[in-house]
Amino acid sequence: MRVTILGTSSGGPFHGRHFTAQVLEAGKHVFLLDCGEGTQMQIFKYRIKVDACRQIFISHLHGDHVFGLMGLITNWSLKKRTEPLALYAPPGLRELVETTLRICGVRMSYPLEFHEVNADQHQIVFENETVEVWSVPLLHRCAASGWIFREKPKARNMRPEKIESLNIPFSAIPAIKAGADYQMPNGQIVPNSELTLDPLPPRSYAFCSDTAYSETVAECVRGVDLLYHEATFTDQHIEQAAYSFHSTARHAATIAAKAGVGRLLLGHISGRYDDTAQHLAEAKTIFEAVEMAEEGKTWAV
Amino acid sequence: MRVTILGTSSGGPFHGRHFTAQVLEAGKHVFLLDCGEGTQMQIFKYRIKVDACRQIFISHLHGDHVFGLMGLITNWSLKKRTEPLALYAPPGLRELVETTLRICGVRMSYPLEFHEVNADQHQIVFENETVEVWSVPLLHRCAASGWIFREKPKARNMRPEKIESLNIPFSAIPAIKAGADYQMPNGQIVPNSELTLDPLPPRSYAFCSDTAYSETVAECVRGVDLLYHEATFTDQHIEQAAYSFHSTARHAATIAAKAGVGRLLLGHISGRYDDTAQHLAEAKTIFEAVEMAEEGKTWAV
Repeated sequence: MRVTILGTSSGGPFHGRHFTAQVLEAGKHVFLLDCGEGTQMQIFKYRIKVDACRQIFISHLHGDHVFGLMGLITNWSLKKRTEPLALYAPPGLRELVETTLRICGVRMSYPLEFHEVNADQHQIVFENETVEVWSVPLLHRCAASGWIFREKPKARNMRPEKIESLNIPFSAIPAIKAGADYQMPNGQIVPNSELTLDPLPPRSYAFCSDTAYSETVAECVRGVDLLYHEATFTDQHIEQAAYSFHSTARHAATIAAKAGVGRLLLGHISGRYDDTAQHLAEAKTIFEAVEMAEEGKTWAV
Repeated sequence: MRVTILGTSSGGPFHGRHFTAQVLEAGKHVFLLDCGEGTQMQIFKYRIKVDACRQIFISHLHGDHVFGLMGLITNWSLKKRTEPLALYAPPGLRELVETTLRICGVRMSYPLEFHEVNADQHQIVFENETVEVWSVPLLHRCAASGWIFREKPKARNMRPEKIESLNIPFSAIPAIKAGADYQMPNGQIVPNSELTLDPLPPRSYAFCSDTAYSETVAECVRGVDLLYHEATFTDQHIEQAAYSFHSTARHAATIAAKAGVGRLLLGHISGRYDDTAQHLAEAKTIFEAVEMAEEGKTWAV
């Protein structure tokens, strides 16, 4: 899996920052996380391939996370897209999208599916053969859900030299990759451990924006390889963080430390900061493996 | 009056072009014309002062002309704007805005006024002490209105040397600037023509996007000083223009010539063209005083 950051701003288009949106690639699948105003321009600017996108996950219905959705999905219709698109979000998105399509007179070239997510629950909301997507209850001023993308366990890797030396037929290989032993024509059993190597461990990515400091978030994202957590403020504005149900960089780092995640990525920066050195410094006092999200940059999970 | 172009694209964010929006300044008044996705970013990028904006005119409710409105007006609310904002548009805008505000949980810091415009009529829809704004019926796939901004006649200019030589009291000056003669204390009448100079003639700006070729448009915009007219296509794609109710550059130039306007500005360029030399060349065969709109550039009307 890898994630590309399209926007690092909260609230306004300040200091060259754009509104929240991320592209997550998992195998051949492409997912879009949030869709602030200008997302389609950022996708175009960074030449990101999103034709394969079949699912968009919207964390909550505040404008800086959703006002780019209508432009993106109607432009896909202008381009005669035919593949269905599923939209996952807390309640309200269906009415917002359908009202806008009706008033703006859009006849979509492809079907939309709406999946209303219960933002109070930590549960699987989507899965395919590659990943499971879990909702994460966030602590915000409205119903808001983070998401965890968990790769499913991969098949074991065959040792190619064993196929040859034991003359294993191709028809037997799927079962062996799934963990089975192999019975030779003479009846001898070869244990799976001699035939295969461990696959790469499944990776996991958590996306948590927007939220105040929440122990529930820490519990849900325990042990993920990469955690994106909003860090709208620095310590200096901790009262504004509390008032607006956002986090400081120190809050985000504390969640990362408690949850024992691999690495931490910070974003959703308030327009009052023209640089983010202070965010990074404050987070590093709690959790060392932290970076600031950068627009157009891709992180391997 | 002067107009600043924020977007020159139709449909998509191609070749660095942005969606339609323009800022018209008339005296101390600031008007916004259309509001495609990303308008607030363009305003920020070009450091345009829009705090004085009290009226926004939306030509029609297609996404590339209106999907930036919610981001702009809700960010003004985040900045604690208090002055009312009036929105002029064909039917539907109130429902679109109010539905979005409700679903997205926005409590606006300032009042919105909705003015539903009959897109079949050529009539005054707004006036203040500086300008009249007229609707212009456009020929599009939905209800669509262009706009003409007509400066009101300005007061005559006093000749300052006459104030001194005739010892004219300040209290008499407003009437003289409005055209009155002046009666001296000895009863002698001084005709207005000796006291004042002609003011600058009132200027007029017409904004026509999106529309197919329409003689009605030509009649409405007769004699304006500067006409912005969409020119989505070149001659090569005249069938697409007809099919989609858009214009070619030649159509726009023909309207400009028939209407006897001063100058013509072309925009709303299809993403299929990476440059606009052909648009300009085809328009110039019909109407010489033509330019291509450029983003961030300001034209005095």
